[in-house]
Amino acid sequence: MAAGCVIGVDLGGTKLLAGVVDPDLNVHHRAHRQSYGPTAAEVLDRVVDAIEEARSASGQEIAAVAVGVPSMMDQGTGVARNTVHLPLRDVPVRDLLAERLGLPVAVDNDANLAMLAEHRAGAARGCGHAVMLTIGTGIGSGAVIDGRVLRGATGAATEIGHMVIQEDGPPCGEGCPNNGCLESLVSGRALAREALRAAADAPRSELGRALEAGTEITGALVTELAHDGDPAARGVVALVGEHLGVGIANVVNIFNPEVVVVGGGVIAAGELLLGPAREVVARRALSPPKEVARIEPATFGAESGMLGAGLLALELAG
Amino acid sequence: MAAGCVIGVDLGGTKLLAGVVDPDLNVHHRAHRQSYGPTAAEVLDRVVDAIEEARSASGQEIAAVAVGVPSMMDQGTGVARNTVHLPLRDVPVRDLLAERLGLPVAVDNDANLAMLAEHRAGAARGCGHAVMLTIGTGIGSGAVIDGRVLRGATGAATEIGHMVIQEDGPPCGEGCPNNGCLESLVSGRALAREALRAAADAPRSELGRALEAGTEITGALVTELAHDGDPAARGVVALVGEHLGVGIANVVNIFNPEVVVVGGGVIAAGELLLGPAREVVARRALSPPKEVARIEPATFGAESGMLGAGLLALELAG
Repeated sequence: MAAGCVIGVDLGGTKLLAGVVDPDLNVHHRAHRQSYGPTAAEVLDRVVDAIEEARSASGQEIAAVAVGVPSMMDQGTGVARNTVHLPLRDVPVRDLLAERLGLPVAVDNDANLAMLAEHRAGAARGCGHAVMLTIGTGIGSGAVIDGRVLRGATGAATEIGHMVIQEDGPPCGEGCPNNGCLESLVSGRALAREALRAAADAPRSELGRALEAGTEITGALVTELAHDGDPAARGVVALVGEHLGVGIANVVNIFNPEVVVVGGGVIAAGELLLGPAREVVARRALSPPKEVARIEPATFGAESGMLGAGLLALELAG
Repeated sequence: MAAGCVIGVDLGGTKLLAGVVDPDLNVHHRAHRQSYGPTAAEVLDRVVDAIEEARSASGQEIAAVAVGVPSMMDQGTGVARNTVHLPLRDVPVRDLLAERLGLPVAVDNDANLAMLAEHRAGAARGCGHAVMLTIGTGIGSGAVIDGRVLRGATGAATEIGHMVIQEDGPPCGEGCPNNGCLESLVSGRALAREALRAAADAPRSELGRALEAGTEITGALVTELAHDGDPAARGVVALVGEHLGVGIANVVNIFNPEVVVVGGGVIAAGELLLGPAREVVARRALSPPKEVARIEPATFGAESGMLGAGLLALELAG
């Protein structure tokens, strides 16, 4: 194993992934956990537990740790601000973890770190202007402007998931007071919600049979059935892809990026999701930005966030 | 008059304003024209005509000219790209004007120049992160990120007016293939369209009487009647202000700016427009960005674009 390893953690709304990362961005050990807990203490216990598992599996000195948090993060203090999916509001995540681990710890927004990894070494490599959407339980997002991650006045940019595309759309819920946000229409939860509707409408489809058999209808199940060719599941993924296309068309018009990278768990649907999104962008966005912007799946798939955290930890150790 | 004067031109979708500007940003002469013409040659004739009027009124050597164009502008070549309101697509505006005027000419997007003026000397002065919306015939927009104007990969950023907020909303029209764009719901044209509906619904209102008397229902008339206290006109301005609030909430969530500056002709409605917009932002945007972002009318009102063009011309002369 290379010297100077670090641990990067992607703390998602549902799952967390910790990885031992070396300076060449190779991943040596991974530890998975469910992330959700009803209190901050329980969530942080899971983070520490996963880090300790990865650390002991590596049998190596760990130089630093970084954690991507699905929250607006105060960069100066390491405190989580408005967090939609986990009970971490106003929690000093960085200092609590540093104390428990006895290691230097850095924190950042999870999607900013996914953007960092894709910009350094993935689908947005070499781009001056790029946008990343990580679609999982909700939508995280990051943007690179003139080669640097956009942070905004107080480090709270870029919440593209909370961009309204349906003024009178469904409530976004869980910490967001808005409705018709991109996240309310495009996310693992939206996929599951639309799938329930489609299953009821098409009881003979695979999706309909799964519902009748009492199987829990999750985004992952819909994606699996869509890959297997079930028309009802494909329809649901395509519908969500079309909403995603409206959101990406907005991003293309606003940022004029070279690439929009789509990652997170929902990208497991691949072209079944991105194909309809690309068609909507081609139809609705402005020229020439829509001809310029590539729409690409994340090179590192669902691991962009963890690798970006690794990059941040390497900087801290460096 | 100070030495080293320049001419700044704001070429709007309906009107154009040319001003003789000195290095302290004082405006010495103004020339107004209607901007629209069916061909590029007619539009450029009007621009040249206004510049010549301002130049001869000043009786002074003019060092340079800059023009803000309501189009995506190719900065390298000075060619207009996708232009929604004027027939300038693929027209080499910079070189044609330089040839006819015998002066150094610079061009930029009109809203980027309005942003520049407000950032240098107006409502966004000293801000690292700011967004400007100029609401006239359509919506122009500009953004400052870490103190610099956001241009995007090919200079086509920031088209916030073509951000969809109503996925199934009205067609945007005129060069934009999209529907439900912010511009389709918030602009002088949207104000006039909503006012026609309100006038028909309330025939005894001032707005209704104006319609019955055959007066043309324009955004300017609605604004005037709203300031006079006509409830129907106030309702129309408030409705448009609420749509504007949804757009500004998106901007606040995406950019986390210190200030959102609203300019252009429609800002003549003042707090009758901005009040309802602020209420929507307070209700729908995320914390803490919504507590951070001021929402301010442009310091230079409808002259931000012309002054920004003056700043650009001063740089060119510099």
